[in-house]
Amino acid sequence: MPGATVTPGRPTTIALDCMGGDHGPVEAVEAAAQLSLSRPDFHLILVGDVNELGPLLDEREYEPGRISFRHTPDWITMEDSPRTAMDDKPEASVLVACHLVADGRADAVVTAGNTGAAILAAARKMGRIPGVRRAALAAVTPTEQTHGPNEDPFALLLDVGATLTASARDLVTFAIMGSAYAEAISNNPRPSVALLSNGTEAHKGPPEVVGAHEMLAELSEVNFAGNVEGLDIPRGSVDVVVTSGFLGNVVLKMLEGIGEVISELAKDAYARRFLWRFGLTMLSSGLRQIQQALDWEQYGGAPILGFSQPIIKAHGRSKARAIGNACKVAVKAARSDMGRVIERAVAKVPSVEEEGTQA
Amino acid sequence: MPGATVTPGRPTTIALDCMGGDHGPVEAVEAAAQLSLSRPDFHLILVGDVNELGPLLDEREYEPGRISFRHTPDWITMEDSPRTAMDDKPEASVLVACHLVADGRADAVVTAGNTGAAILAAARKMGRIPGVRRAALAAVTPTEQTHGPNEDPFALLLDVGATLTASARDLVTFAIMGSAYAEAISNNPRPSVALLSNGTEAHKGPPEVVGAHEMLAELSEVNFAGNVEGLDIPRGSVDVVVTSGFLGNVVLKMLEGIGEVISELAKDAYARRFLWRFGLTMLSSGLRQIQQALDWEQYGGAPILGFSQPIIKAHGRSKARAIGNACKVAVKAARSDMGRVIERAVAKVPSVEEEGTQA
Repeated sequence: MPGATVTPGRPTTIALDCMGGDHGPVEAVEAAAQLSLSRPDFHLILVGDVNELGPLLDEREYEPGRISFRHTPDWITMEDSPRTAMDDKPEASVLVACHLVADGRADAVVTAGNTGAAILAAARKMGRIPGVRRAALAAVTPTEQTHGPNEDPFALLLDVGATLTASARDLVTFAIMGSAYAEAISNNPRPSVALLSNGTEAHKGPPEVVGAHEMLAELSEVNFAGNVEGLDIPRGSVDVVVTSGFLGNVVLKMLEGIGEVISELAKDAYARRFLWRFGLTMLSSGLRQIQQALDWEQYGGAPILGFSQPIIKAHGRSKARAIGNACKVAVKAARSDMGRVIERAVAKVPSVEEEGTQA
Repeated sequence: MPGATVTPGRPTTIALDCMGGDHGPVEAVEAAAQLSLSRPDFHLILVGDVNELGPLLDEREYEPGRISFRHTPDWITMEDSPRTAMDDKPEASVLVACHLVADGRADAVVTAGNTGAAILAAARKMGRIPGVRRAALAAVTPTEQTHGPNEDPFALLLDVGATLTASARDLVTFAIMGSAYAEAISNNPRPSVALLSNGTEAHKGPPEVVGAHEMLAELSEVNFAGNVEGLDIPRGSVDVVVTSGFLGNVVLKMLEGIGEVISELAKDAYARRFLWRFGLTMLSSGLRQIQQALDWEQYGGAPILGFSQPIIKAHGRSKARAIGNACKVAVKAARSDMGRVIERAVAKVPSVEEEGTQA
């Protein structure tokens, strides 16, 4: 469980896969160097080709006591088929990073590499939380309303693509995991959780959503707010939105596309300064809000939930700041008791036979 | 078939359900009065309580030869359960309007009432196009790219909620119907059609999407562009996007929610005029584009596809202009041969047994 295996005295340790991101190892090494100077409370193991990582680190200021290496020359590219790569590259950096956690030498994994490979590597090396049948990839989405005591303008959406379909029991498990993660990361003691459907009424939606609604209504461990509709995703009516991976993936990519279309507007810094100077603060602050929302990918990465230790997937195009944020989030998750919270709540879900609802 | 039953000499006739919209009959009557003055090429039958409709029409200028009435005191409200209302209110205006078409006294139906009731009324009275197993509700969505010779900044999305799940064969039928409708309405001789999925590769998506992809790749009647992702919905990479009703409903409502959030920005007409005067045309035209896109609901209503004659569902909050546009679209559809085009293409789809993919 996260938090359970942290040896007293040993600082929380992150296995940082340095190899798979779009920018190569330089951004991961830069993030590690900065964190080593500012965060005495945790240790980083840089996983990758030491012939590349060593010189990159040497060019930077860093605190040597807080960084170590685990050398491996192999890594999985964005173009590799995740499933094939698992067998063809057993020493790939993401597999080695997950192995370090399985061995108890690290407490969490951070990677900016191939998402499918990260999910499969976690499944192969780390094992699932007892009772969890399917892992879920979660993502933050920009919202109009703010969430939790930190007033984050983001909500958590899961699953966004770890698997395509989900049974009623899977959706309930996703609700439990999303709730535990939001609680651990956002200091939100009782995040509100909803199912995405085509209407707010309990009977609305395909059978797996109706079934999950029934089970969640009985489960005191989750602050269940019922169903939400597509409208509520940009509004942000709840803290955690639960859906199947197929629908979650479409929703997430749609938000990305809308962000791209709108960014044409928000890009023009001169125009914004101009507006502000002439007192059109409403228009100017609106554009600023949109631009901040477009930056949501930078907020710490997407957790892959359901495994016995935290694994955070930073976006492929992450720069040092985003990878650093992902490491901070991973440390927070590793120190929480979310694994135990999830295990305890999942144990209360009735294990009905309902494989028929799976495609 | 649309176009097939139009008697030579008789003008194309629309059965206009005047009763179900949010604004009551006044907007429908206003639309009819305006159309009677400007469009000598078609006739309107106003369906509803003649005690209300008569006085409303008398208050207006109109061309008496182009409007007639079919009295019925009953109608289905937005709050009624569509299924129950079918039996409880056999003389409801939407059922009467569909019956007029079934009887050959009208060529198309327009209604701003309860969507579920419109779909059920069409199914009960008009009958499906041979080979079509499930009807689909289509909607236009605002896009960055334009479509067809008219350069419409909209694409067609279907199904958006006539039913929840769809088999591979249903998705292929939706593709055929969406293509035929886009061709008839947008003068687009060969609209591009894509399946919504979680990746562009043919093997991506749940089994029904993969199966539909295989069938569409073989079907020369549809200009099949493969799979598109969530990103492509706001971009508008294709003219017609095909998905199941559950996913389509979430996507459509999400766009509505995003529109609401953004409209805070676009609302300020003074600011826009101001920008324009100071030469900030890029910013100003961006806001204008967003505002136009927000107005997409006004563009003619949502066709319910799959029935032997056209039925157009205008938004519940439609004013006279929107209802008038829906009538014009209905006339265009009634005069096209889309029913025959759909029947011929559907006949070529292999009727595999694949009910197992249905939830």
